[in-house]
Amino acid sequence: MRIGIYGYGNLGKGVEDAIRRNPDMELAAVFTRRDPASLQIATENVPVVSTEQVLEWKDKIDVMILCGGSATDLPQMSPELAAHFHIVDSYDNHSSIPKHWAAVDAAAAPAGKLALISCGWDPGMFSLNRLYAGAILPDGQDYTFWGRGVSQGHSDAIRRIPGVVDARQYTIPVPEAVERVRAGEMPQLSTREKHSRDCYVVVEEGADREAIRQQIVSMPAYFADYDTTVTFISLEELREKHSGLPHGGCVLRSGKSGAGDCHKQRIEYRLELDSNPEFTGSVLVAFARAIFRMAARGEKGCKTVFDVAPIDLFPGSREDLLAHML
Amino acid sequence: MRIGIYGYGNLGKGVEDAIRRNPDMELAAVFTRRDPASLQIATENVPVVSTEQVLEWKDKIDVMILCGGSATDLPQMSPELAAHFHIVDSYDNHSSIPKHWAAVDAAAAPAGKLALISCGWDPGMFSLNRLYAGAILPDGQDYTFWGRGVSQGHSDAIRRIPGVVDARQYTIPVPEAVERVRAGEMPQLSTREKHSRDCYVVVEEGADREAIRQQIVSMPAYFADYDTTVTFISLEELREKHSGLPHGGCVLRSGKSGAGDCHKQRIEYRLELDSNPEFTGSVLVAFARAIFRMAARGEKGCKTVFDVAPIDLFPGSREDLLAHML
Repeated sequence: MRIGIYGYGNLGKGVEDAIRRNPDMELAAVFTRRDPASLQIATENVPVVSTEQVLEWKDKIDVMILCGGSATDLPQMSPELAAHFHIVDSYDNHSSIPKHWAAVDAAAAPAGKLALISCGWDPGMFSLNRLYAGAILPDGQDYTFWGRGVSQGHSDAIRRIPGVVDARQYTIPVPEAVERVRAGEMPQLSTREKHSRDCYVVVEEGADREAIRQQIVSMPAYFADYDTTVTFISLEELREKHSGLPHGGCVLRSGKSGAGDCHKQRIEYRLELDSNPEFTGSVLVAFARAIFRMAARGEKGCKTVFDVAPIDLFPGSREDLLAHML
Repeated sequence: MRIGIYGYGNLGKGVEDAIRRNPDMELAAVFTRRDPASLQIATENVPVVSTEQVLEWKDKIDVMILCGGSATDLPQMSPELAAHFHIVDSYDNHSSIPKHWAAVDAAAAPAGKLALISCGWDPGMFSLNRLYAGAILPDGQDYTFWGRGVSQGHSDAIRRIPGVVDARQYTIPVPEAVERVRAGEMPQLSTREKHSRDCYVVVEEGADREAIRQQIVSMPAYFADYDTTVTFISLEELREKHSGLPHGGCVLRSGKSGAGDCHKQRIEYRLELDSNPEFTGSVLVAFARAIFRMAARGEKGCKTVFDVAPIDLFPGSREDLLAHML
């Protein structure tokens, strides 16, 4: 299976790491908008190609994994490339997924190409677990908690405040809320009751720290609805202690069964990730295998993780699965 | 969707409870080997029919859910019924699954029927989670812990000892083992290090308790390889405190990513069930929906949970899923 990586940021590097761990896959090329000569990738003897030459690779790539951002890159890239390649993307702007799906399907289906959008862990594995749990326990309630982990969007929002040099924001589930859900209480939880936000901020010398703190904690949508802690640290400390991109979280469903709803049934799916982009990359690569197989069977158009039979993700044989994994 | 329940023990009752919670489903009939007149089911106005008359229901049942035991019932029942109905069973004898699959496939495929075997939580949801996690993190290790929960097989083994009136056995994961796995240590764990066994035993008056205790803790395969605790209690206490069928457990995969395997990635799927048979019944019913839909598309032969695209489990529309669950 010849895989192309389109975009070589943190996610592209994560995909590259995952390909290396799957012997049935081969990294065919990395595509970049930068000058290819300026890019040093981790895999030896693999070409780095300008995105402008991508169409010359139509017959040399089985699945293209798109590693651009959801804000501006993927809404344009995914439909464009889906007209020429089988693609997988990690589009994660939840509220615009139906629009993105329609645009990619309109490009892929007439071209006889297969596309998988919104793959990763949320959307992705968390979505799958919400679906499985909801189908199994129709009388119940879902809870998704994110963290402890770095939110890039919230870190960026802090960096835009004048006087801020750099910042790192951790999203943290409120432990009491998680415990109440696990206990099967099915609580109604406000935004503030579910997550808190922990910010490590580096400011310019002489900056008004209290004013910056106030700007952060009162920022609408990002922080105002949460209990937010701001800690000012040095650039050295930020680099030393907060350079990783850990993340994770859990999807819980608490349901009822039995006469008079006498029994509680609880399902929990939990991720604890030292590296968010490397895990997302691993998920994209597993689903690229499925897309390759589904395309070989003649499927086309836009799919999601919900459409993929799990067996298509697995490198081994059906006999193996029946004998050892079922 | 007209569902038949074949066998009305704990599992059959669990399936009945789940059907009631799914508005797109209807319980068509319950089939029993007992005298139908002797059976009082929970759902009103639904016929109880002798298994001898089952073929008269060929056109009145969309999916038959088989609720027999794996030791002797299902190896015979599943192939027999798969020649006439689309079926779902919960065959859970892991080592004989390939043989069971072959027998059911040989019956279903030529008849144009669709069958799903080994559905439930293990095999079933735990298997699915082993597959997803293994496909995502190829460099890693799997751990499955069962409990705290009642093991019927182990309880039965104790009941067969002369002098024992009744017994209830709980399988319990060793907390230290679970914590080591969660911490990403990837330990090698012996049978004894993974689970302990807790037995509540009622004996005849005058029975030699120490001799019975010895027989339990030294029983090969069942108890000898575990740290086993035996507590003698009265029949009243057994009925009062140990009449439920709770169970659960977790599937964990601990994997590595990044340059030099520098990052740990952990996936955990956890069930905490007040009622094991009602949860298993809920899973069977969700997959019965998928089998109904897959059969309507012309699929036939024997499938497992690995072959089912998650979207087929869900009662809502694709638009719903894209907009609200992905």
